[in-house]
Amino acid sequence: MSASRSPVRQSSVRAHNLALVLQTVANSADRPSRAAVSAATGLTRATVSALVDDLIAGTLLTELDPAPRTGAGRPAAGLALAPDGPAGLGLEINVDYLAACVVDLTGAVRHRFVTRADQRLLPPCDSLAEVIRLAARAQQAATADGLVLAGAALAVPGLVAPGGLVRVAPNLGWQDVDAVTPLTAATGLPVTVDNEANLAALGELRADGAEPTFLYVSGEIGIGAGIVLDGELYRGGRGWSGEIGHVTVYPDGRPCRCGANGCLEQYAGQEAVAADPDLAAAALGIALSAVVNLLDLGVIVLGGGYAPEFERLRGGIEAELRRRVLTADLAPVSLRAAALGADAAMRGAADAVIRGVREDPAGWLATAQAV
Amino acid sequence: MSASRSPVRQSSVRAHNLALVLQTVANSADRPSRAAVSAATGLTRATVSALVDDLIAGTLLTELDPAPRTGAGRPAAGLALAPDGPAGLGLEINVDYLAACVVDLTGAVRHRFVTRADQRLLPPCDSLAEVIRLAARAQQAATADGLVLAGAALAVPGLVAPGGLVRVAPNLGWQDVDAVTPLTAATGLPVTVDNEANLAALGELRADGAEPTFLYVSGEIGIGAGIVLDGELYRGGRGWSGEIGHVTVYPDGRPCRCGANGCLEQYAGQEAVAADPDLAAAALGIALSAVVNLLDLGVIVLGGGYAPEFERLRGGIEAELRRRVLTADLAPVSLRAAALGADAAMRGAADAVIRGVREDPAGWLATAQAV
Repeated sequence: MSASRSPVRQSSVRAHNLALVLQTVANSADRPSRAAVSAATGLTRATVSALVDDLIAGTLLTELDPAPRTGAGRPAAGLALAPDGPAGLGLEINVDYLAACVVDLTGAVRHRFVTRADQRLLPPCDSLAEVIRLAARAQQAATADGLVLAGAALAVPGLVAPGGLVRVAPNLGWQDVDAVTPLTAATGLPVTVDNEANLAALGELRADGAEPTFLYVSGEIGIGAGIVLDGELYRGGRGWSGEIGHVTVYPDGRPCRCGANGCLEQYAGQEAVAADPDLAAAALGIALSAVVNLLDLGVIVLGGGYAPEFERLRGGIEAELRRRVLTADLAPVSLRAAALGADAAMRGAADAVIRGVREDPAGWLATAQAV
Repeated sequence: MSASRSPVRQSSVRAHNLALVLQTVANSADRPSRAAVSAATGLTRATVSALVDDLIAGTLLTELDPAPRTGAGRPAAGLALAPDGPAGLGLEINVDYLAACVVDLTGAVRHRFVTRADQRLLPPCDSLAEVIRLAARAQQAATADGLVLAGAALAVPGLVAPGGLVRVAPNLGWQDVDAVTPLTAATGLPVTVDNEANLAALGELRADGAEPTFLYVSGEIGIGAGIVLDGELYRGGRGWSGEIGHVTVYPDGRPCRCGANGCLEQYAGQEAVAADPDLAAAALGIALSAVVNLLDLGVIVLGGGYAPEFERLRGGIEAELRRRVLTADLAPVSLRAAALGADAAMRGAADAVIRGVREDPAGWLATAQAV
């Protein structure tokens, strides 16, 4: 039935099955037994056992033997993701803070470092040097825990080209900054760079109870958005989607540093929220109504600096949504604060590393063996 | 390797392979031979021949025997989609016109009927009765050609629920109108109803040279949009994406019939374009900049009533895009008039029927046999 005649290699079958077993354990509500994994995947028990042994040896899974229950506190027997194996290093450079965190394979944040400092007056190399210092502290803490960092990802509030070059980060004053090379050299890890709102949206997507389709809006000095459709980040034709901060709300309004007038950022950036939360909420509501009219999204998540201000902003935003969204009466839009608050971007960055391991455990096992 | 153990039934293999052969012929640049289809699909020549015979008997394919070339005008030998088999009936009810067309399996428009008449003062049943009259004329013309209509699709400028109920069409004055039942009864065909901008975007997607990702904007009395991402229409969470006509351009501006103020429709609907094309172009440019900032789309197609006004609107729109799109310097946005002009929605409607046949030829063969 298939048009493809190319043989499937044994090594790729093993890689596929390792990922299948790991995902099956990761998606289980409780700790499944080897027999349960066999039943869920359709693989034989012998195959599952061999794969599980490899995943345990590679510190990707742990297993507790069945034992008689002796008390309510005893963990259930079975397989679970290992908390002491590979971990992800999440980094963030934002306009008024720098951050780093270590997230293990189970998704738990093991370490978290934040430095508040205005980056707008600094040259890019100074911001990079400071985030490298945070990264080194995080690496030491991870090593002390016995974790092995599988990679690092950096979140920046700007337009990032596919290879990781930061083309423009207007609120940092960056233009064509290569953050990959110095970070790779300093950490010795594979490094990726991505837009902070995109990574924050991905972080939020992995949080408990997240909807599969939502708009994530990150309010810092600048404003960015991540569009999540059916569990996938929508990046746009060139990877530069989500620039909600430059959606026009008042066409002849305040000049923006991008060169246009009346951009949302001028009315609902962090400083504007502090100065006039009602105007900020109205401006946000106007821009968010445009998003809902265009994309018919039922959930909007307010993150970054908006998360702690959520209750102050909510009423004003909702009033505009009711008034300006054509389908408001037919299909309500729900608004909520980000579950991860201002940590969403660095969490999403660390999570991107972890997902790489979870999706390709064979690659991780090969790397771990080589080390 | 697969977790699924359910057997594949012979009938579903045949259905899959019929579709595979039909698509292979449809996507070929020239008329492929049975041997070429075998090579392209990986199916044996005997299997391909049996399937091709069924598709020819069902008037889905035609075949010309290889013959010595006797002149430049002789068609090439080989397989092609049949122009005399199933066809689609495309219908449209818009604010100031009604339309019907018949499109054959090759995508050619065989018949086209348009009636100009303002529908705003009419009750929905009158508009439906008039479109049913156009449908009857189209059916007669199709029958005279020996075509068999496989179904009908109706385009309306409004919000359509998944089952085909028109929830709201503000510029027609419709609310909760069932167009499926009367059209099914009158035509005897399977009928679907969809938003006109969505169908127009699909029509445009099938036109020669169309990009896989673009925004289609339809300017009539109202304004709608269809968002095409990677060759697929993006319908949104509830199916109500693309309401660009109600994106706010001037927050305290003209009252709109939707209840809000300053909607794009009030500045760039057909009547506004006639009254002040420069203001219309500026308003369109502001709203389109929001779309590009959010979705990073590289192509915008202006259709419906905008197509004939394209050169008058272009400069004003492009000026706003240059000014308001954050990535304008990095990734230019190209603007073009719809290839299908004002016919895009009815063409897209007919095309939706045709695609149904092309994607499930086994279903068509079963129906045709039963008739």
